[in-house]
Amino acid sequence: MSSEKLRVMMLGGLNEIGKNIAVIEYGEDIIVIDCGLAFPDEDMLGIDLVIPDISYLEKNADRVRAILLTHGHEDHIGALPYILKMINPPVYGTRLTLGILESKLEEHRIADTAKLITVEAGSIVKAGVFTCEFIHVNHSIADACAIAVRTPVGTVLHTGDFKLDVSPIDGGMMDLTRLGEYGREGVLLLMCESTNVERGGFTPSERKVASSLEHIFLKNVDKRVIIATFSSNVHRVQQIVNASVKFGRKVAITGRSMVNIVDVAVKLGYMKVPDNVFIDISEINKYPYDMVTIITTGSQGEPMSALYRMAFADHSQVELTGNDIVVLSSTAIPGNELLVGRIINELYRRGINVYHDDHEVHVSGHACREELKLMHNLVKPKYFMPIHGEYRHLMQHKELAEFMGMAPSDIFVMNIGEVLELDGESCKRAGNVPSGKILIDGLGVGDVGNIVLRDRRHLSQDGLIVVVATIDITEMTLVSGPDVISRGFVYVREAEELMDEIRNISYEVLANALDNGITEWTQLKNGVKDALTKYLFQKTKRKPMILPVIMNI
Amino acid sequence: MSSEKLRVMMLGGLNEIGKNIAVIEYGEDIIVIDCGLAFPDEDMLGIDLVIPDISYLEKNADRVRAILLTHGHEDHIGALPYILKMINPPVYGTRLTLGILESKLEEHRIADTAKLITVEAGSIVKAGVFTCEFIHVNHSIADACAIAVRTPVGTVLHTGDFKLDVSPIDGGMMDLTRLGEYGREGVLLLMCESTNVERGGFTPSERKVASSLEHIFLKNVDKRVIIATFSSNVHRVQQIVNASVKFGRKVAITGRSMVNIVDVAVKLGYMKVPDNVFIDISEINKYPYDMVTIITTGSQGEPMSALYRMAFADHSQVELTGNDIVVLSSTAIPGNELLVGRIINELYRRGINVYHDDHEVHVSGHACREELKLMHNLVKPKYFMPIHGEYRHLMQHKELAEFMGMAPSDIFVMNIGEVLELDGESCKRAGNVPSGKILIDGLGVGDVGNIVLRDRRHLSQDGLIVVVATIDITEMTLVSGPDVISRGFVYVREAEELMDEIRNISYEVLANALDNGITEWTQLKNGVKDALTKYLFQKTKRKPMILPVIMNI
Repeated sequence: MSSEKLRVMMLGGLNEIGKNIAVIEYGEDIIVIDCGLAFPDEDMLGIDLVIPDISYLEKNADRVRAILLTHGHEDHIGALPYILKMINPPVYGTRLTLGILESKLEEHRIADTAKLITVEAGSIVKAGVFTCEFIHVNHSIADACAIAVRTPVGTVLHTGDFKLDVSPIDGGMMDLTRLGEYGREGVLLLMCESTNVERGGFTPSERKVASSLEHIFLKNVDKRVIIATFSSNVHRVQQIVNASVKFGRKVAITGRSMVNIVDVAVKLGYMKVPDNVFIDISEINKYPYDMVTIITTGSQGEPMSALYRMAFADHSQVELTGNDIVVLSSTAIPGNELLVGRIINELYRRGINVYHDDHEVHVSGHACREELKLMHNLVKPKYFMPIHGEYRHLMQHKELAEFMGMAPSDIFVMNIGEVLELDGESCKRAGNVPSGKILIDGLGVGDVGNIVLRDRRHLSQDGLIVVVATIDITEMTLVSGPDVISRGFVYVREAEELMDEIRNISYEVLANALDNGITEWTQLKNGVKDALTKYLFQKTKRKPMILPVIMNI
Repeated sequence: MSSEKLRVMMLGGLNEIGKNIAVIEYGEDIIVIDCGLAFPDEDMLGIDLVIPDISYLEKNADRVRAILLTHGHEDHIGALPYILKMINPPVYGTRLTLGILESKLEEHRIADTAKLITVEAGSIVKAGVFTCEFIHVNHSIADACAIAVRTPVGTVLHTGDFKLDVSPIDGGMMDLTRLGEYGREGVLLLMCESTNVERGGFTPSERKVASSLEHIFLKNVDKRVIIATFSSNVHRVQQIVNASVKFGRKVAITGRSMVNIVDVAVKLGYMKVPDNVFIDISEINKYPYDMVTIITTGSQGEPMSALYRMAFADHSQVELTGNDIVVLSSTAIPGNELLVGRIINELYRRGINVYHDDHEVHVSGHACREELKLMHNLVKPKYFMPIHGEYRHLMQHKELAEFMGMAPSDIFVMNIGEVLELDGESCKRAGNVPSGKILIDGLGVGDVGNIVLRDRRHLSQDGLIVVVATIDITEMTLVSGPDVISRGFVYVREAEELMDEIRNISYEVLANALDNGITEWTQLKNGVKDALTKYLFQKTKRKPMILPVIMNI
């Protein structure tokens, strides 16, 4: 056994935001930390979600001893409903994390077969040769943990996502002591998140939001208050409830994920709400405007979210007027700025005041540079792998670690699937395992790949033209068509000439080919395709997809 | 004549960013201020540009006395190559503005027929009953002006885009004196830009960028420096040249629009470059790294821009290595954050240090709140129309004007096409003229409308399925097919069962219909469409476009 090596790899969460998943392997034992999803890039047209390629784990399914979860965010647990259909080891997480996971598994109808085991900060899980301890950290969701994994060659410390909150709403400050004890004992490898490495200083405390909220409530005592935030931020929701109670308001919740998570959080005791504060969204009109707060999803401007529907007067229970104000207790995730802007404009258009960015109604859940330095200083790892970030974040985190005194050769900026191999003496890159993106589109898992996406992009740019003709191959004659159908190219009724010309060109190409004895299907189709592509580009500077269909009778 | 009223309207630039165009009308005379383009929204798939609907001006072409240009940015002049094919009045602008416009008109081959008349700050243009004065302002392009229009009922002051720069690179501080003189004399209507109304304080001087640039040059004396910025910001380019000269570097320019504009700016004397500083991009390898600066387009992450091609190792003349640094002397326009991020990641991946946001290498060209207040205070208009902004900007600008003491009833937040009617006594909304977006796709102007875009969106989400069958209608039999072709739906080779089932369902529907004597084309097609839509949604939760094509022989 002493010749065995520790192998550590990320199957997601490097050079990308989301689908975080770490794999730790020694001898016959494998454990997995987190199993998240990512949202599609803008060029993944029609894709709903992205999950990590876990074929390496599938192949070694009988060796996977446990999946350990750091916290309940989508990018850490969201792939499990799909992954647990492929492999089904025990899943360990804190109560809120598993509470949120469970409602997802129920939707996917696999809650019964999944093996969920509740832990808490301080719990120790034995999984094969590994001894894993959950360590309390602060984050924008309650019940978040770092995980320390004792292995035969040394300890691996995985921070999960974290921030330092010296005055948290609930659950206490992150356990600096325990992290420091691991540091003193010696940590072989630190895997630390990198999200906010580009921001200097310390992330403000969640508690800071309270005074901003109260200021807004005070300035708008005669208005109904609608607040959008991330549904998983139960401490934020708690603070909104607190402010509402202070100002004598009832609170209604809308938006599916917000309702679900608040439900779980209250049930499990992560939120404390006095009796008779929550009202159903259908009851809001029984109360005067100045007695109601509505907490909603949609802080990212998501079309079809509750806030979006309110803004566009399409929400069945909430009708907004000048008697409402809207607070976006959130920040736009890169890529969502335009969607958020669209909602803000629509709200202003309807005479509704909007509080956002400028009003200190949001704080980040991730460690800024000084907090990252604190982590490095406490843990003092021998080797370091920055995780959870795009390439620029990982590189800047590497620089930060060098600033903290690490040798560049002890820091490993890795790719997904790339294996880091450690023993007591050394640490080196050791090849790759399969890794990548599996695209989810509707019920399809992985059935949309590059070719399909390339076609969607092509179709989205200039539309398509279908040319259909029926040929009698024995007589070598066109018996029907060519007919031309287009979609997404030009408005046909106003482009009859162009459509006629497309038909004429197709006819000529086919008739000529048949006259010359060409019966090869591919040749006939390519002839039509080439002639039309050339004609249309010269005429319109566009390149619609051209689909020739030739039938034989 | 005394019963005539002044009519003022925007045909673009309200509730949107871009395609700025103002129309001022009195009796038989019309003048136009600016004529810009907008970039397509993300849901305008395949669209290249958006220009304003000017059918109102086309209808009244013989009454349009002049088009006056405030400055040479795309959102103020970019629609002219299209618009001047529809109407062709004289176009007045400063030298740089017309220099940039001219190169665009040459590309569109209408430079010969356009009537361009050069003015300068202080010039007065008589156009029908209107007397128009160009007034110098600061902006992120040289030679920018506000325009004061004396009309029979009072003066209209249009600010164009502006900022106050108390230490500009060239051309002097904006002409507060002349604006103040108009204010003292009495301004009937102020039309003031609103871009930065959400930002407090004053916009920093362009000169501030110099020290940041020199700091970067100093820290990287051994590196080649690549700087991306907006091509039209000739003062920024001048400062980059100055810093380069100071550090003994040659300067090469790359990117079509950058080359064009620098060319115009040098020719017209807006940039002063010592001899032997500019080198051709093909010559850069003749010089050591530390003697070269490259100024490039691509600061918005535009795919195919020079910087993008450099980052992705696809630029024919510039090969980046660890001996280069890249400076983004710009800010990401909302919606472009991901594109910019992609370039930064790629540069980091290739070991190249990137300077952006944090390093004070960019300042805005637009007035922040204190500068807007200054403008209101100088001009003291009787009525006010906020322009150039989304709805939230216009509304916040209205609030700012109220803060400055205006009565809410004297402020008009308008829509495009909406007419403001003024005489000496009153100011009121007076109906609408046609207005809207004309989409440019390739050579097509306005031939892509809502139906085409809807189809492109549909195709982009789930692709399409074409079902083709040939029928002998006299015999009531299927003589060929149904054949099924799909694109952008699933990868066919891995979904043979699904494709078979699609074929079977189509066959059954058609065979049944023919058995029942149905020969109505639409009915046959809808039968196939409905059956497949239902089947596929239940099977895959997707809704591809279904195109049944039935031919008769």
